[in-house]
Amino acid sequence: MAKRAKARLPRGFRDIFSEDYKLRREMLDKIQAVYESYGFEPLETPAVEFVETLGKFLPESDQPDAGIFAFQVDEMWHALRYDLTASLSRIMAMNKDIPKPYRRYQVGPVWRLEKPGPGRYREFTQFDIDTVGSGLMACDAEICMVLSDSLEALGFNRGEYVIKVNNRKILDGLIDIAMANGDDQSRQNQIAEWFKARHNNVKDNKIEITPELEHEHKLDIMRSIDKLDRIGIEGVIQILQKGRRDDTGDFKSGCFLTENQIAPIVDFLKLDCSSRAKYLDGVGKIELSEIGQEGLKELREIDEFLTGAGYDDTRIAFDAQIVRGLSYYTGPVYEVVLTIETTDDKGKPTQFGSVGGGGRYDTLVMRFTGQKMAATGASIGVDRLLHAYKSKVTDSPKTATQVLVTVMDRPRLADYQQMAAELRAASIVTELYLGKKPIGKQTKYANDRGIPIAVIVGEDEFNAGEVTLKDLKLGAELASGITDRDEWSKGQPAQMQVKRTELVEAVKGILARA
Amino acid sequence: MAKRAKARLPRGFRDIFSEDYKLRREMLDKIQAVYESYGFEPLETPAVEFVETLGKFLPESDQPDAGIFAFQVDEMWHALRYDLTASLSRIMAMNKDIPKPYRRYQVGPVWRLEKPGPGRYREFTQFDIDTVGSGLMACDAEICMVLSDSLEALGFNRGEYVIKVNNRKILDGLIDIAMANGDDQSRQNQIAEWFKARHNNVKDNKIEITPELEHEHKLDIMRSIDKLDRIGIEGVIQILQKGRRDDTGDFKSGCFLTENQIAPIVDFLKLDCSSRAKYLDGVGKIELSEIGQEGLKELREIDEFLTGAGYDDTRIAFDAQIVRGLSYYTGPVYEVVLTIETTDDKGKPTQFGSVGGGGRYDTLVMRFTGQKMAATGASIGVDRLLHAYKSKVTDSPKTATQVLVTVMDRPRLADYQQMAAELRAASIVTELYLGKKPIGKQTKYANDRGIPIAVIVGEDEFNAGEVTLKDLKLGAELASGITDRDEWSKGQPAQMQVKRTELVEAVKGILARA
Repeated sequence: MAKRAKARLPRGFRDIFSEDYKLRREMLDKIQAVYESYGFEPLETPAVEFVETLGKFLPESDQPDAGIFAFQVDEMWHALRYDLTASLSRIMAMNKDIPKPYRRYQVGPVWRLEKPGPGRYREFTQFDIDTVGSGLMACDAEICMVLSDSLEALGFNRGEYVIKVNNRKILDGLIDIAMANGDDQSRQNQIAEWFKARHNNVKDNKIEITPELEHEHKLDIMRSIDKLDRIGIEGVIQILQKGRRDDTGDFKSGCFLTENQIAPIVDFLKLDCSSRAKYLDGVGKIELSEIGQEGLKELREIDEFLTGAGYDDTRIAFDAQIVRGLSYYTGPVYEVVLTIETTDDKGKPTQFGSVGGGGRYDTLVMRFTGQKMAATGASIGVDRLLHAYKSKVTDSPKTATQVLVTVMDRPRLADYQQMAAELRAASIVTELYLGKKPIGKQTKYANDRGIPIAVIVGEDEFNAGEVTLKDLKLGAELASGITDRDEWSKGQPAQMQVKRTELVEAVKGILARA
Repeated sequence: MAKRAKARLPRGFRDIFSEDYKLRREMLDKIQAVYESYGFEPLETPAVEFVETLGKFLPESDQPDAGIFAFQVDEMWHALRYDLTASLSRIMAMNKDIPKPYRRYQVGPVWRLEKPGPGRYREFTQFDIDTVGSGLMACDAEICMVLSDSLEALGFNRGEYVIKVNNRKILDGLIDIAMANGDDQSRQNQIAEWFKARHNNVKDNKIEITPELEHEHKLDIMRSIDKLDRIGIEGVIQILQKGRRDDTGDFKSGCFLTENQIAPIVDFLKLDCSSRAKYLDGVGKIELSEIGQEGLKELREIDEFLTGAGYDDTRIAFDAQIVRGLSYYTGPVYEVVLTIETTDDKGKPTQFGSVGGGGRYDTLVMRFTGQKMAATGASIGVDRLLHAYKSKVTDSPKTATQVLVTVMDRPRLADYQQMAAELRAASIVTELYLGKKPIGKQTKYANDRGIPIAVIVGEDEFNAGEVTLKDLKLGAELASGITDRDEWSKGQPAQMQVKRTELVEAVKGILARA
């Protein structure tokens, strides 16, 4: 006999059973209906792409193949996609004749080779929505509106969520000004110190400061700011300076900015964002480089469009603290935040937080074509959103099956099947019991599966032309003495005999009770 | 500037755009509704499993990792799943408390590292349905009924499809008897010759004939029979003998049976299968070993259940020529065949053929647990079925979008957005044009996307409180002189002006025309 295989899941993967599956399907269907109402079209791309297509856009990753599942096929490096955006960029470069603006949505699994943990899987579902081929700010505004409408379609009320918008160009312009608080030589020294601290193994003491390296330094400043909600303003200041030691004792080296340079950044992060108007006013008073001014103009356009469309601050807000870690964003960025309360690992009440986000990325297709193509979009983390959605769904039956036709007298299987067929024909989801267990075990099976009604027919009933119906739900309630049904229902029996010819009507009657 | 990436798909993979995606979704929804009406529950398993979990059950494959996408993670061999059955077996072994019989369905992609070709992809979708935990033949019959109902739900009429059923036990019993036409010594020589012909590099001339090797030889006989529809009865006879050279000149070595041994097999394959009753009669007259008799009894039970449930020979037939290549089947096997006509590569009319199949596999969970667990089920090849389904769907709109609100006067974007919002509120799928092109290009965009109605509002119309509606579909028909609309429709204008306040009603009116 061959060696037995171990029945186990690879680390970071999971099975999704009926109840969760159906709930997710229901949620995705509702979101999809909103997306489609705006003219977004579905797209599906393969799970496998060339590593070259995926590029190196994972947050906080320097290596092209770090964090992905890669393998060689036909002597070429393939990998499981880690997001849906890289594939969309490839498609835009391959299919030049797609009418633009191209509004598309895509939902599906992505894979990341990261350390799994509670609620952190190596395979998870993203639901993306993007508009490609238009640089109009109305596209960014529309994405935010669609996200807002989607959350409301799921039952999240005004005040339970907010889409927070900021602009990377404003951050860019702010950092330009901040860095200018220092002469050229000291700026070059800062970048060299930052680089050496990050790469312990740099042998050459003389670092050449290229524009690429300056850009990387700037991105690192943004990533540091992006940590705000986790490490607080004091933590951000430490990372913008020499570095920060976290609770576990790990030291993360910093960006080597001076106090003078950090001050305008901190001022910006503390901006009054209680309304879009106040944010715009506040930013208008800050010193910004040209790119920053452009970003401000863009957010004014978005505000105008949103206000015209009736989306106020409670639904879509401007927020100076939104950065979004990914390096490829080029303009507005947005974050989908649920403000409902939940509990953290330690049981402490906390805000549910981010369930997705996105932004504009006009340069992503350029990797393939050498030319810019305007694009903006967002990605929803389906698993996190589902977690919140569950709290909104009050009644989710364990199974869709409404009736179990039990089998007491196996030789008469065809007669039992006939009953099941009649019920199905009346759109009642019906299972015929096809195991070999006795009747007691059959009703236990129905209870275990959460099936509310059992049909029981033995020899006597066959002879009398009758069937017995068991209301298992009511039976369980009566047995436990707990029922929230009204008095009328309580008066109904949990078990009854009806004529065989009245089977369907009687089942409908019991279903109507619930 | 960094090296440009090539925008291309890995070999054997593809993108699925809106039209095909929606058609597939529609088809899957219809099948799923049938599955659920019988109480089958959805399940989702990860794309990635341990190679050990997948086992070596690919048809005609000896190596455990041939034909799969495998890679090492955490020093363990992982792979993309190549079917959905191995994962189901793992789940049954891991979750002993699932109420049984467990009826589940699963739809999703699977991956096979095979040579891609026209219509042959390395990533394709399977739709599986299985019942685990019951050995009753009624389960096999029910699977066939569900498959039959599913095809009818898709619009395939009686006579356009048939579920063909056979039993591996009967084939087993038949081969036992066939092999007995020869003494022990010559049988051992046959198996040795078969083995040596298949493995040119066998050094040892003395082959030990183990029960495993005898079993492999038997499976190879079955696989040879399974080639019947591709190579015909003469081809099968050649492979059952020394071997067969195909049209390309390739030689495939055979099973080394004698004429005496082949005769009963050929007789069986030529059995009259014009009705289930005739098949059962015919098999009843054939000499079979004990296991073969058991198989006959099982098919009698299936026939009885199907007849009682009203599923006649036109829907579910018995067919002696059905084998199914997979080695793990242990009882009834079934094949889903579309009998509608299609054209082959050369444009010649031919029967559409198989779109899926399955069978009973009572030993698959045993790989993990050491104990048998009854299981039966089928898999539908979604891509092939979709190809056939397309011929059934007469009207598939290119896009779901019904209205494009064009933008002539960009500063009034908020007013255009307001029109789009009103239309959406009336459940009309509406796009707001968010590109920068002039109005002529905007209606071209609508035409390219297949959007039937354009709303056009310029300064004059704004001032007059009016909007212009363009019926692009009718316009195109009138322009081409080809229209199948009735006279009334022809009398309608392809362009009209209505009051702004009557926008929604007027759009509804045009949509009702179609």
